[in-house]
Amino acid sequence: MSYSPLLVRLIDGLRCMPGVGQKSAQRIAFHLLERDRDGASGLSAALADAVDGIGHCSRCRMFTESELCSICSASGRDTAQLCVVESPADVMAIEDATGFRGQYFVLMGHLSPLDGIGPEELGLSKLEEWLGNGEVKELIIATNPTVEGDATAHYLADLALRNSVTASRIAHGVPLGGELEYVDGGTLSHAFYGRRAVD
Amino acid sequence: MSYSPLLVRLIDGLRCMPGVGQKSAQRIAFHLLERDRDGASGLSAALADAVDGIGHCSRCRMFTESELCSICSASGRDTAQLCVVESPADVMAIEDATGFRGQYFVLMGHLSPLDGIGPEELGLSKLEEWLGNGEVKELIIATNPTVEGDATAHYLADLALRNSVTASRIAHGVPLGGELEYVDGGTLSHAFYGRRAVD
Repeated sequence: MSYSPLLVRLIDGLRCMPGVGQKSAQRIAFHLLERDRDGASGLSAALADAVDGIGHCSRCRMFTESELCSICSASGRDTAQLCVVESPADVMAIEDATGFRGQYFVLMGHLSPLDGIGPEELGLSKLEEWLGNGEVKELIIATNPTVEGDATAHYLADLALRNSVTASRIAHGVPLGGELEYVDGGTLSHAFYGRRAVD
Repeated sequence: MSYSPLLVRLIDGLRCMPGVGQKSAQRIAFHLLERDRDGASGLSAALADAVDGIGHCSRCRMFTESELCSICSASGRDTAQLCVVESPADVMAIEDATGFRGQYFVLMGHLSPLDGIGPEELGLSKLEEWLGNGEVKELIIATNPTVEGDATAHYLADLALRNSVTASRIAHGVPLGGELEYVDGGTLSHAFYGRRAVD
């Protein structure tokens, strides 16, 4: 016993999304068909247009449907500072939270040799070219504080060194509002040994 | 600062799915664009075809692209037993787990006056018509053991009574393999007072 062919195809199609298994896909399919067919049609069109239209910014690799993304094409950004992040969401987070006015380079992932993701997949030859033109004075490394993010950070620091660009990494430690008692040991140890003089 | 227009539209579109908020929608959009554009195109087509093609079985309300679903159009099913369930997934679960060879009626929800879901939205006039034609001898009520499912079950039992059809409800109690110590109080109490003579 199985669902009708079109429904089976819809459920299979929904499973291409990360974190969506058979049960979630069924639940989503039933919801869309029973309660939100307009939403489903809209999603279908949005997916088709996105696949057709969205590519990468030729400068920073951000998702965009233009040649350059809105940050790379904006005037008045500081070209001396370049911040490297893993994902487009990190760009948004930094833009919203900080007053950073420099430029970004989006890796779209991190070094992960086992998954076949090396320097070429992250566009690092393009980054090296950028660093080589002498405009960038500081490379701000904002990869995630994970094993892969750390390895990527080391690789990026070497790249900066080879091109005589200063490299820095965003600080890791106890989050604001966090209580020491409840912070995990790794973070606390990192914060402790990375203590800074009070000025 | 925001994403490019097509990407914003994709993220908004993904949020029509239940359980998908802004962060999940971003994660799904990035995954599809970066790693699975074929999957995204397939999903787009599957959604469009499903919205166009899939309707309800004119007899039991199951999702199908034909006039009758595969169970209603099958020969050799027992027309004297009719099992009422809340969702298409329940039909699959019962078909897979039991030897039931009767027919189904799918409510596509449960009574929920606050959400504007009354007897008409559940197709109960169609069910009453079916019960009225004299073919069905037993109405097996398999709604979920929740507050709304219980209310719906009471309504269905009344409906059966009015049409002189025997109504039964699937048993609720301690699940097989469960340990009494870890079963919630409501289920245990229900199992205790619903005890049956050992024959």
